[in-house]
This record gives sequence, C-alpha cells and structure tokens, in this order.
Amino acid sequence: MNKPLYIVKIGGNIVDDELRLSGFLNEFSSIQEKKILVHGGGKLATRLAEQLAVKQTMIDGRRITDAETLKIVTMVYAGYINKNIVALLQSYQCNAIGLSGADGNAILAHKRHHPTIDYGFAGDIDSVNTGFLGDLLEKDITIVLAPITHDKQGQLLNTNADTIAQEAAKGLSPLYDVTLIYSFEKSGVLGDASDDSTVIKKINRSSYHQLKTEQKIFAGMIPKLDNAFEALNCGVNKVIIGKAEELDSLITGTSGTTIVNE
Amino acid sequence: MNKPLYIVKIGGNIVDDELRLSGFLNEFSSIQEKKILVHGGGKLATRLAEQLAVKQTMIDGRRITDAETLKIVTMVYAGYINKNIVALLQSYQCNAIGLSGADGNAILAHKRHHPTIDYGFAGDIDSVNTGFLGDLLEKDITIVLAPITHDKQGQLLNTNADTIAQEAAKGLSPLYDVTLIYSFEKSGVLGDASDDSTVIKKINRSSYHQLKTEQKIFAGMIPKLDNAFEALNCGVNKVIIGKAEELDSLITGTSGTTIVNE
Repeated sequence: MNKPLYIVKIGGNIVDDELRLSGFLNEFSSIQEKKILVHGGGKLATRLAEQLAVKQTMIDGRRITDAETLKIVTMVYAGYINKNIVALLQSYQCNAIGLSGADGNAILAHKRHHPTIDYGFAGDIDSVNTGFLGDLLEKDITIVLAPITHDKQGQLLNTNADTIAQEAAKGLSPLYDVTLIYSFEKSGVLGDASDDSTVIKKINRSSYHQLKTEQKIFAGMIPKLDNAFEALNCGVNKVIIGKAEELDSLITGTSGTTIVNE
Repeated sequence: MNKPLYIVKIGGNIVDDELRLSGFLNEFSSIQEKKILVHGGGKLATRLAEQLAVKQTMIDGRRITDAETLKIVTMVYAGYINKNIVALLQSYQCNAIGLSGADGNAILAHKRHHPTIDYGFAGDIDSVNTGFLGDLLEKDITIVLAPITHDKQGQLLNTNADTIAQEAAKGLSPLYDVTLIYSFEKSGVLGDASDDSTVIKKINRSSYHQLKTEQKIFAGMIPKLDNAFEALNCGVNKVIIGKAEELDSLITGTSGTTIVNE
C-alpha cells in the first residue's frame, strides 16, 4: 500500500483574492500527508497584460501565448503568484518549494501543434519527472507547481494548470495513493447548474454514462469529467471536484463530488 | 578535502542582453563541479516599473522597495529572469533549479531596520539553509538563486544579489571548497579605473592595505573588497572579480582579480 498524496489544483478566482487565498493555504498546510498544489492565475495575467497594453486573444478559453504574453505569464505565474504562495505556506510552517516545469526538468512539454490555430508558446506535456518530485516529497517538502513548462531547448511554455495537475497525478500514481482535487467556483458537479445545493456526491462510470444519457449534466463539466476518468484509468485513486474553501470536507468526502473508477 | 563549489554572481548588464546571457550560460554549464548561479536583474525591473508608471527611488544605489516595487521585482527576478535562465541551462544539459529564498526556506531574512531611511520591503539575510542547498547540489542539481528572500511570516523581501552570493558562499564553506566569483562590467580590480588593461591579478590582505594607503584603488571597489575579505574570513577559499564573458579564465586565474586570505 502506497502512502497517500494529495494533489490540489486551485483556480484563478481564489489566487486573485488575498484573504481567500490565505485562508485556503492555512487549511492546505494542515494536510499531514504528502501534498502538491497546482495553481493557475489567469485573471492576474490578464490584468497585467491590460496595464502593459498587450492584447490578449482567447480561443475556446485558451490563451494565445505570443512572446509578450509568455513573458507576462512567466512573471505572474512563476514569479508573483508562485512565490507569494510559497512564502505564505512557509508562514504556516509548511516547507514548500515553488517550481516551474523547467526547474529540475520537472515537466517536459512541446509547443502545441494544431492544424488550424497557432496557440503560440502553449505547451502540451510529454513527461513528468516523478523521480525528482518524489525525492522532494520524501523530504517532506510540499511542491507548488506554476503552469509554466519547458521544451528542454530553452523555451518556456504556457501550460494549462488542470492538465499539469492531471499529469502530475498520473505520473506519481505508481509511487503514491493519489487523490486529485480540482477546486473551482462551484460546490461540485451539479444536477442543476444554477443551484449550488444540487451537488452530485459520487459519480462512477455507470452513473456518469446515465447522467450524460439523461442530459442531467452541464455540458461544460463533460471535459472535466472525461479528464477525471482518464486520470482514474491511469492509476489515480480518486478525483474530487468542489470549492477550495471546503478543502477539509472535500478530503473527507463530506462535500464536493467524488469521482471513482468503479 | 571538500569538493569544489563555484558560486557565480552575474549582474544586470549581462542578464539584460539575450545573446551575452546565452553565451555566458553555455560556458557556465560546462563547469563540471558543483555550482550555484546568483543573478540580479535591476535594469529589467526598472524598465517594467517605467512601463507600469511605478516611480522608483534609489538611495546609495539601493532600490526603495514599496509594495508595488516588490511585486515588480518578484515578477522580474523570481519569474522572468530566473525561469529563463533555468530553461536555457536545461537546454545546455545542465539540470538547474531556480529558487527564491522562500523556496525550501532557502534564505531567511528580515525587513531592513534603518534609523533614518525606510527601505520598504528590503531584506537583510539571517541564515542560509545549507542542508537543503547541499542536498540539491549532491544530486548534481545546479542552483539558480533569485535575489528575493522571505521572513517566514509570509513576507517576500527584495535582497541584494551580491549579499546573497556572499552569504551562500559563507554558509556552504564548511561543506565545500568554495570559490566565489563576482562578475561585473570591468575586467577585474583596476589599478587605473579608466584603463581596463590595468587589472591587479592578485590581492591579499597586505597588498590590499598598501593599495588603500597609496590610494591606488578606486573608491567604489572598497566595499566589494571588504566583502570579499569578510567571505574569506568566514571560510570561503577564494574570491574572484572579473568579466562574466571570461568565466573560463576567471576560474583558471588567467583573467580577473583573485582575492586570497594570506
């Protein structure tokens, strides 16, 4: 039986709010098991881009990363957000280290190829350096991953934070009993997208199939759930989706949606 | 006999120049022994501050770090510069990791107290986590230090890169045979400040005393040399001052000024 590892992804809406972020990190730091935090930070990057008059283009919710935008996201994600999170965790007696994918060659990626859209310096992940990450975890160091990777040719790449969390979870699942937690603005996967009290507590393969067939699931959740099942297929033990502010109860399963491979 | 460790500090003028930086990193990556790179980056921070209309105040060459300026230096030093250096080193097959002082609690500092000047979020170093840095070095990981520290109370602090290099060198000298290299725009300590061919090849305590007595040394070099002798006093083996572009010959002692404790 492997040791438990929690990989928690937090989105831009909490990163952007000093008070909520600090409360979340306090709760996160109290997890006694091995843990990894993956953060986004798109809103702060968008704001800096506005201040610097660097026009931002989004296609299907993905940022087109031209050279100036890459500079901005590297500064905001790997610099400002990552180091502030690490400093806050240190203040909560949690010995954290902030990493981009270039650090220790943690996450190797390649520039995205797409037949029609040029995403610019957007990275798709090739591999996660689980030996290096595992070594840090075994020294009781908490890892904080910024959504920036590299191609080992000297190029940094902007990479989706959900995907980083998923790939880290898949990569580390042979070494640990991995629980992957995606936090977002809602309380979980909802039966009625407009009603936060309709959280579906547990989804397995057959209930997912049924929910889709009955069109009882919000279309925007389908890629997230497909990714969750892919992670479970690749050895991740459990995926939980819910609110960052409810981290304790997400872990115990008393809030949020738990997705299991059964 | 301890293993050799090279700690190299590069200044803003090389960090700012893509071609020179890349050439320097190629040379640095070919050092076969353990190594740490410490970078500044003041010019790029000043430029971003201008773009964002954040007024910069300098007193005696030190930046007054208000909250907005701290945000800028954290983004530029720990984000943009640090991660680009790490990605370039990775492309030269040098497995590097970029750290601020908050990462792994690498460098602990406190907000500077000064009787008359409020330096803002400027940090003076209390301690270097040599166990953590030593563990990384022993795994053949090259450390790239950004001049940002923390106070373990959640506050990041802007810290002079020369001082970081010096404190890292002093802290690691019980574990390694440390050579500390300060690179700057001149070829070394000059007998005539206006003539780059007048490099003084070697300075020891008695020749330093004589150079000062005879006023043969440029006044601006005195604090640098005082710091160098302090580092030597605290166990550092050798301090070398010279041009980053001449790294190979600085190490072999065929260029630059070597300062020794004899």
